[in-house]
Amino acid sequence: MPRYRLTLEYAGTRYSGWQIQKNARTVQGELNRAIESALGLRQFETYGSGRTDAGVHALAQVAHLDAAALPPPVTLVRQVNDALPHDINILAAERVPPRFHARHSAVARSYLYHIATRRTAFAKPHVWWVKEPLHLARMQAAAAPLTGFGDFRAFTDADPEEQSTRVLVDEVSVASEGALILIRVVGSHFLWKMVRRMVGVLAEVGRGALGEQDVARLLRAPSQGVAALTAPPSGLFLERVLYEGDPPPGPLRPVLTL
Amino acid sequence: MPRYRLTLEYAGTRYSGWQIQKNARTVQGELNRAIESALGLRQFETYGSGRTDAGVHALAQVAHLDAAALPPPVTLVRQVNDALPHDINILAAERVPPRFHARHSAVARSYLYHIATRRTAFAKPHVWWVKEPLHLARMQAAAAPLTGFGDFRAFTDADPEEQSTRVLVDEVSVASEGALILIRVVGSHFLWKMVRRMVGVLAEVGRGALGEQDVARLLRAPSQGVAALTAPPSGLFLERVLYEGDPPPGPLRPVLTL
Repeated sequence: MPRYRLTLEYAGTRYSGWQIQKNARTVQGELNRAIESALGLRQFETYGSGRTDAGVHALAQVAHLDAAALPPPVTLVRQVNDALPHDINILAAERVPPRFHARHSAVARSYLYHIATRRTAFAKPHVWWVKEPLHLARMQAAAAPLTGFGDFRAFTDADPEEQSTRVLVDEVSVASEGALILIRVVGSHFLWKMVRRMVGVLAEVGRGALGEQDVARLLRAPSQGVAALTAPPSGLFLERVLYEGDPPPGPLRPVLTL
Repeated sequence: MPRYRLTLEYAGTRYSGWQIQKNARTVQGELNRAIESALGLRQFETYGSGRTDAGVHALAQVAHLDAAALPPPVTLVRQVNDALPHDINILAAERVPPRFHARHSAVARSYLYHIATRRTAFAKPHVWWVKEPLHLARMQAAAAPLTGFGDFRAFTDADPEEQSTRVLVDEVSVASEGALILIRVVGSHFLWKMVRRMVGVLAEVGRGALGEQDVARLLRAPSQGVAALTAPPSGLFLERVLYEGDPPPGPLRPVLTL
């Protein structure tokens, strides 16, 4: 059966995450419903690059679709978009060889987190508003020990599907722009809640409640305390899914202005 | 009674406009309710610089508040914001002399309109998505005759409160940034629906359905046809209210990225 690669953006606010579930509204569930109704397909499967949690957004989630007899990609995008809710949007579709697999072929994922340093009338669903002043340079210094190959046991909840809590993190960047602090994390894969806990720990350093040296300690000697620092899903965007030959993520740019 | 100037931003999506109304949720209604509950005030009045229609947003609406015995401005902002819904946000408060009047002292208003040239999962409540390709240079050329002192009768609905349909427009700018076309209109005052009809006419020129010369004709010989071109409120932001001595609006910048 021919395989198509779909790139899509979504605002996760109204959804119980990416992955299809019975009795819950999910992004993949809406996508499948729209494909079925717009294209009249019955026999097809969609497969995402990975899950995103409830409330988490995506700028460029990648999924593949196996289906026979599809219209040309431009028509497919328009027709399925017309059947999708306004907060899910297919950006591109292309025919790919059957060896392409949205999840298994992905070599890296890039996540972007938006912290707002002030109250905002417009951006609440897409940021985490931290009321206390945040010390940017301290957050940047604390990001360093999170980079590299580390044991992120303290940064995840037990997940029977994960074989190891050791992860190679390629990049942790912290920058500010206007009233936003942006955090980007790039790695081959991430454990459940890991990015939100990294952000939560960095914010705690920014507040002065944790020292920069505490971050290295949390990697050496996991503490239950990290769970309480999990940053909310509203600020998190799956930014890019990278495949063999893709250029690395470009300069750190916010999704919104504040 | 002491007078305070409030500057506030709001997302108009959930509101029936600025102005307080019985049996409708309005921004001023929410503001009054929050002032009453946060500050325990009974005797006070708020007065806006002007109305915004249902669904229209504001980046810096100005209102004045007459009330005795208020806390210091910083405390007032925090306390009232804590009692406001998330999509209304007081940016600043300051004590002003009683000769300051939010509406009568205003010398100019600046509006910003966002047209999206692609479907978007995030920005729908804050843009107008125009599906047809828009020709930017034609829109810029068509903006010229809208500047200056003109009769905007075709660009408004009859409003018994208005004495004249002649308005001095200081600036109509059209620019593009990413997948956005931005239109800014600055003038001493605007007629009801006038900005949205100017935008609708400019978009019609951008589509090629109206010529640049038709715009001057609409000012000379008003046509009913303009009403059908009224752009939706979602893309419209009251950007600034200008008072004596204020600097003019800065460079044209989008409120969001696309």
